[in-house]
Amino acid sequence: MSADSSIAIVGAGMTRFGYTPNRDLRSLAHEAVTESLLDAGLGPRDVERVYLGYCLDLNGQRCIPGQIVLRDLGIDRVPITRIESACSSGSLAIHEAFRAVADGRAEVALAVGLEKMSGASADATRESMSGGADAELEAALGITFPGVFGMAARRHMHRYGTTLDQITAVSVKARRLAAMNQRAHFDTAVGADEVMASRMVADPLRLLHCCPLSDGCAAVVISRASRARRARGRPVMIRGVAQLSGDFHIPGDLTSFPETTRAAGLACEAAGFGIADVDLFEVHDCFAIAEIMHCEDLGLCEPGGGGRLLEEGATLPGGRCPVNPSGGMIGKGHPLGASGVAQLVELTEQLRQRSGSRQVPGARTGLAHCIGGFTLGRPASVAVTVVAI
Amino acid sequence: MSADSSIAIVGAGMTRFGYTPNRDLRSLAHEAVTESLLDAGLGPRDVERVYLGYCLDLNGQRCIPGQIVLRDLGIDRVPITRIESACSSGSLAIHEAFRAVADGRAEVALAVGLEKMSGASADATRESMSGGADAELEAALGITFPGVFGMAARRHMHRYGTTLDQITAVSVKARRLAAMNQRAHFDTAVGADEVMASRMVADPLRLLHCCPLSDGCAAVVISRASRARRARGRPVMIRGVAQLSGDFHIPGDLTSFPETTRAAGLACEAAGFGIADVDLFEVHDCFAIAEIMHCEDLGLCEPGGGGRLLEEGATLPGGRCPVNPSGGMIGKGHPLGASGVAQLVELTEQLRQRSGSRQVPGARTGLAHCIGGFTLGRPASVAVTVVAI
Repeated sequence: MSADSSIAIVGAGMTRFGYTPNRDLRSLAHEAVTESLLDAGLGPRDVERVYLGYCLDLNGQRCIPGQIVLRDLGIDRVPITRIESACSSGSLAIHEAFRAVADGRAEVALAVGLEKMSGASADATRESMSGGADAELEAALGITFPGVFGMAARRHMHRYGTTLDQITAVSVKARRLAAMNQRAHFDTAVGADEVMASRMVADPLRLLHCCPLSDGCAAVVISRASRARRARGRPVMIRGVAQLSGDFHIPGDLTSFPETTRAAGLACEAAGFGIADVDLFEVHDCFAIAEIMHCEDLGLCEPGGGGRLLEEGATLPGGRCPVNPSGGMIGKGHPLGASGVAQLVELTEQLRQRSGSRQVPGARTGLAHCIGGFTLGRPASVAVTVVAI
Repeated sequence: MSADSSIAIVGAGMTRFGYTPNRDLRSLAHEAVTESLLDAGLGPRDVERVYLGYCLDLNGQRCIPGQIVLRDLGIDRVPITRIESACSSGSLAIHEAFRAVADGRAEVALAVGLEKMSGASADATRESMSGGADAELEAALGITFPGVFGMAARRHMHRYGTTLDQITAVSVKARRLAAMNQRAHFDTAVGADEVMASRMVADPLRLLHCCPLSDGCAAVVISRASRARRARGRPVMIRGVAQLSGDFHIPGDLTSFPETTRAAGLACEAAGFGIADVDLFEVHDCFAIAEIMHCEDLGLCEPGGGGRLLEEGATLPGGRCPVNPSGGMIGKGHPLGASGVAQLVELTEQLRQRSGSRQVPGARTGLAHCIGGFTLGRPASVAVTVVAI
């Protein structure tokens, strides 16, 4: 899938992610969208098309969330489309906005990711989240996301000798980086002992091996670079995108998602460079074991080598292949529909060299990877976006 | 917005709409998608991209419905994206599938509309449906869809002298045509006396002035006409599409939605012909007054003339401007996410001269119109699709 190299993220904004039961969807969206437009040097009336990633509708607004939250900002009349693809909803909103600019349907498109998870009851949240797997067949059997990744962790440990210390180190890294990220859900670092002292969720994964439920919104403005002459930062080119569904007819063993390898390959092919040319990665670390798996599936190390890669410091901002400098979902938080867009906000800031103590030195290319939903042992949806400055 | 005139609906299928508490989403989707592929002379592995319109998720499957329902048909690996835009979800799935073929992302794309509304409690249904307006501001005040259209009916009667008999005649026509449509929710005609004897819902609208809650699925296969040489019917060209959000900053009086006029104008402009050249219309008759309003907004008669247009027989299949020969939402049923696709199934069958006693003689062009959601007195989303054979 080829990408028009002149189409870029010209503005980015996001709220701090976190637990904000007193903020509504509108308030979250207004902050992120306003920031993204100011960053792009554009106004609400410049926006010609909107795609909004929104997933669980836990707070009453079941339909047309885009029209409801953007109305009072002065974004109306234009096409506004909600995309849902579980945790990859925001990534696909970006892909669709990119396509709309590429094929001339819009000069300026807005991609928004939005979710408010606080304020709903535990039962409603659990029931809703279980709808990210097969609600009839899997949810009823307790095959929930923590269950799947707990099994994946045990299998990875068994097959490759990955240690619980290595898995725990993912959380420690995530929280350390999140503590440097003013927009992260968690603002404190934790040690391995704290992670291991947190309550068991799905053996061997404990609470701090899991991403939190967060509220938040992220937005990016997409246009041809030439359309945003008053932007506050350099345009970040969208060089390649790829979207896949799971390969449900080939049994997997939970230690690897070949869909990640395939999607990353397609997106890099469109971008015209290889994984080795990518300077930093934001990957879908919904659980600590997942970051280790994704590093392997992206080819940053050999299968089974993800734990050691981390121990060697290669995935730190100054390392050979920095992964989740934002703090990832474990540290930054995971408002489902917002996360895919937030990954691109982080990459945009990093490529503009604006990330302060989390900065990946000299980063010029980045890759974002999201998975959404899970069924038959495979991710339901995988989305990869490759950008360059 | 220009349309590539060689891109067509090459296969169409749908379930009967109705009350089917014992069928699940999978069963509904398998029937409609299989029929659409057989009709196109293509197989599941020919499908390169899927957009699925799905709205209320009343039956547990909150996320990734496409992957779940298409998996066992052998449609996996490819991009599958859910679109939600309230009652216009299915229409937008078609627009996105059309765009994907137009810009070369897929040779064959599938657009599916799906909804199962039976089996949920009345409370859950009411709460979920209220999320089609502003859940915080409007739903809490009881500004529900029946309420809005009840007010619209009263206002239309006051302003234009439209009579309750004329409004009732919409339902009588819908049920008469539905009784000739084997895939309609209702298989019996009703008289005006029966409509007026049904219980009051939102004055002056009674139960039989309202569409029912239905289950169902509809699917269309979209490709370049040349890609489906084994199709069972002639390709139906997608000549123009238009999508708008409500003009929320201009107060309306509920008797007219200027968004309909604007969207139909854009879609016809892309198609290269005018409303007067359209041979039949499927419009969003969620309530009987709505069909009258849409006839006026589409320019089939002067403002306030919709009731008389109907009385004159102009909107019957043999009339000057046939409207909802399928039986419309009031007769055929309204599984929210499915309705926009079902409109195109009806237009496809009509343009292929396959509609039996409901056939619009010699129809060569058709227009489908859906609205989705409602806020501040305006439809949140309006989608129009123009096709020709």
